[in-house]
Order: sequence, then structure tokens, then C-alpha cells
Amino acid sequence: MPTLFILTRDHQEYRAIIETAGLPDLKIASEPTAECEIVLGAPSLISAVLDKLPNLKWVQATWAGVEPLLDPALRRDYILTNARGVFGYLMSEYVMGYLLAHERKIFQRAQAQKNKEWDKTITGTLRGKAIGLLGVGSIGAEVARAAKFFGMDVRGYTRESETSTQVDRYYHGNDLASFANGLDYLVAILPNTRETRRIVNAELLAASPPGALFINVGRGAAVDETALIDALENSKIAGAVLDVFEEEPLPKEHPFWTTKNLLMTFHTSAPSFPEDIVRVFIENYRLYIEGKPLKYQVDFERGY
Amino acid sequence: MPTLFILTRDHQEYRAIIETAGLPDLKIASEPTAECEIVLGAPSLISAVLDKLPNLKWVQATWAGVEPLLDPALRRDYILTNARGVFGYLMSEYVMGYLLAHERKIFQRAQAQKNKEWDKTITGTLRGKAIGLLGVGSIGAEVARAAKFFGMDVRGYTRESETSTQVDRYYHGNDLASFANGLDYLVAILPNTRETRRIVNAELLAASPPGALFINVGRGAAVDETALIDALENSKIAGAVLDVFEEEPLPKEHPFWTTKNLLMTFHTSAPSFPEDIVRVFIENYRLYIEGKPLKYQVDFERGY
Repeated sequence: MPTLFILTRDHQEYRAIIETAGLPDLKIASEPTAECEIVLGAPSLISAVLDKLPNLKWVQATWAGVEPLLDPALRRDYILTNARGVFGYLMSEYVMGYLLAHERKIFQRAQAQKNKEWDKTITGTLRGKAIGLLGVGSIGAEVARAAKFFGMDVRGYTRESETSTQVDRYYHGNDLASFANGLDYLVAILPNTRETRRIVNAELLAASPPGALFINVGRGAAVDETALIDALENSKIAGAVLDVFEEEPLPKEHPFWTTKNLLMTFHTSAPSFPEDIVRVFIENYRLYIEGKPLKYQVDFERGY
Repeated sequence: MPTLFILTRDHQEYRAIIETAGLPDLKIASEPTAECEIVLGAPSLISAVLDKLPNLKWVQATWAGVEPLLDPALRRDYILTNARGVFGYLMSEYVMGYLLAHERKIFQRAQAQKNKEWDKTITGTLRGKAIGLLGVGSIGAEVARAAKFFGMDVRGYTRESETSTQVDRYYHGNDLASFANGLDYLVAILPNTRETRRIVNAELLAASPPGALFINVGRGAAVDETALIDALENSKIAGAVLDVFEEEPLPKEHPFWTTKNLLMTFHTSAPSFPEDIVRVFIENYRLYIEGKPLKYQVDFERGY
């Protein structure tokens, strides 16, 4: 009978949902012990207890990003699966929400209301606007689907994959400048890897039109922060919405807090709702007890 | 050869688009004269020139709402068509934009940023939330489609029609309280008629949950303003987003400007883009010259 250890802030909620599911042959431990072979939890917490789990066979992360477990100093003798297929709808809500807020000038209208001004400035529409997705994995595909729903022109920049049929045109390799040319929205949805580090740099920002809005829902390391601040302060792009940062929480003295036309959302774009994550865990647990390959396995070398 | 008179603020743009379309046998007049049999324009402007058009046969309004032409003192000896099928995507962008702004707490996050607070408050999602549409015409159907895209539970309140298949459940007649019970979002998309006047009253607002957000993109007359102010100031509902008002522009002394949890957008939710409206006009013009019944005819008595 496999023993599971749950290690998240809201472990009691996870435990209750899993117990209700009545999974066959599953024992849930209250401590990380030698008998635990499965761990479900937050990568940042799990990295600290790996040494207490000699019989660890499988870690199901409650997050999409698993950087804390990719440190080369840590063991890699277990199967690591991340949470996939559960953040797409949340990310697409976030992205579409900020796109619409931009088109609809919702901050400007609120300010007009404060000033008691009847602000008839014409509103924009997403229809026909161009959105460029840096990274089109399962989350990017969901964002692409929402963008198509609103009649947008969807571009995707990927290493090589072209799996989402919602993308109108794919770009790869050195095509970044033509990918960015004419974009209304540039959205980074990239994992943190060697290839994606600082991909949003001065060059890419210069290739984007002055009217473009940049959104980062992937990882902070994808952005050259100095280049982004320069682009915003000097109106080389129209604005940025950042959910992720190199250092989180963002230090109080960081210039982002007051950078012109920059909005930040404190890594809240796609919360891990326990009911969503447990669905992924159960799907994989059934494969696990049948000895079949698990879904959403992370390649420790590749990083996602 | 039919003669058209164009009467809108942006008549030159309309004229250029229509001329480019090269419609058969159409002459465009620069003044409202006896020879004009077709008028394309804004109802508020057309009502003032009706007397100068003895041979008027057809008015194509550039708006959805045609109240200025419904005054019983005005002539009704012509066919009045409104702009339909062109505002749906704009209205659904507006509604989804404000729904997402609410779930994603975008004003709260912006305030947190000003305060340099790393605000990790959990974000909400539209998935599974209940939206109630007061009125499901062509615009309501588009809003329903967008709400279904985001996984919402969609209710529709109509006089009798149940044409949109995107609505999960319809309500009619005296069902308003059960329609409102449990709603997360209440959206009024109603024309101004005797039946819809003050339909959003103290009773309906009391039947809505304290967490509900009310959005009005139809007509201001659908709302009992005193009841809405009471509901907002006393937190009987969570908030309101109003695009339309009984009196527009809203007078400076109106309490709405500073009512708690009320956002206003100054009748900007669905602008009449000339290229959209001309598409409707051309569609109807082709029917007109063939002597066929026009689309989107307004019933002067019913009011829409």
C-alpha cells in the first residue's frame, strides 16, 4: 500500500479532498517518513525534506514551475511530475482580463469618474489585434484559444513545437524580431530554462511597436529587467503587466514598484486550487498503481 | 436612383466607406432634401430633420437604441431599422472585461502596488460562476457565448424568447426572484420599453446575493437609481458597473459619481464603428433595391 505525504500550506484541504475520493490502497502519512513513496506538494517545501524520504518514488508538484527541485545539488532519483492542464483557464482569464482592461481603458475611466468627467474617449476592441505568445505549451494553448475566441490574430514563438492549432502563425529560432513586428500584445508564458533566460531583452522590446503591451505570466528570469524599465520609462512600449519577478516577493526598493505604465500582480495569476490539483494527482495515481508511465513528467535536465 | 443622406458626426468616414463599396444606383446627398428617401445616421440627429424629408422611406440607425425616433409626436411613415449584430462582440468584451477585473481584483492590486504591498490575496475565477442576463437579444446572445466560453453558468431572463442555445436556463414573467437567487453577476442588456422600465428595482436587488456585481449596458431607464444607490451604499450587493444612465451626460451633482463600489463608463461600451455599421447598411440596401423586406426593423409601438 503506497504511502503519501502531503506538503503544502493548505495540506488539510488537500487531504480532505483526497480522502473523499477514496483512492484504492492509499495511505496518507502525517510526517515525511521512510515509508513515504509519494509526495504531493509545493516544490519549495519539498526540496527541504528530500533527505528524509529514502523510499521516494514520485513527487507530484502542486505548481507548474518546479525550479526548487531542479537544483543540481538535489537528488533526482524519483519521478517528478508537475501540475499541468489546470492553470490554462486561469492564465487565459488573467491575460484576457488585462488585455480587455487595456482596450477598455478601465483605469482611465475610473480616473475620469473621480474627476467627474464624462469621458467619451473611444474604446478599443480585441478583434483583429495581434497577440504574440512567447511559449505555447498547455497554458499558451489555452491563452491562444481565448485570443481566437475574441477574434485576435495569434502568433506563437516556440523552440520547435507547433501543436496548438489555435495559433495562426509560428516562429522559431532567430525569428524573434519578425515575431514581435506589429504586435499589439506580447505575452511571455515561458518556463525558466537556459534558452528562455532574458529572452525579453532590449532587442525584442525594440522590435515591438510603441503601442504594444507586454505581459509576463511565465517566469521573471525571462525578462531583462533593466531593458524593460528603459522601454517603459522611454515609451518604447505602451505598458507592462508583470505577475512574476526574478526575486519574489519583489524587494521594496525595486524600481518596478513605480515604473511608468507598469502594473504588477504579485504571482497571483494562476493559483493552485486544491480541487484542480487533486484531479491531476488522482489521474496520475491511477497510472502509478497500475505501473504505467505518469503524465506531466518533468525532465530534470530540460527543466520542464 | 435612391438618394441617401448621411447624418452622423463622422459622416465623412461613412461616406468614404460607402463610396468605396460602389453600391448600385445609389446617390449620396449633402443636405436633407425632398429627393432623399434613405437616411443613415444617429437617431438623435435624425429626429430633428424628419420634417425636411417628404419622401423618406427608410432610416437605418447607426445605433441599437432608437428612442429619439420613438416619440409619438414624430412621424412613423417610414421603415426604421436599427444596427444589430454589430455590437455583440463589443458588449461581450466590455462585460467580460469588467467581470475579469472584478475576479482578478485589478483595482485592488493596483492600489497594493501604490502602497508597495506584495498582495497575495487569492484571485477568483469566472469558471462555475453564475451570470444572469436580463434580456437575451442578439447582444445578450453574444454575452452568453462569451460567458459559456469562460465556463460560467448562464441564466437568461426574457419576455418569452428562448432563442440563444448558450443560455443554460431561461426565466420569464414573475420569475425574477428565482432568476436573481444565487447570481454572481447580474447584467442588464435591455432596450428601453414600458416593460423594462425600472426592472432593476429594490426587490430584484434584494433577491440578488450580497456578493453580486450588477452591470448595465442596456438603457439607464431599466434601473431604479435610488434603489441601486441604497443597495450599494448598504452593501446589499458587491458593486455595479454602469455604462448607461437615465440622463446622459450624467449631471455633475448626481450621487452616482461617488457612490460606493460603483464604476461608470460614460456610454462607451459599444461604439458604432463605421465599418461595422456600413456592413449592416449595405446588407439592407441590397434588400431595399430588390424590394425585399429589410432586416432589423424596429416596431415603433414595441420600441425595439
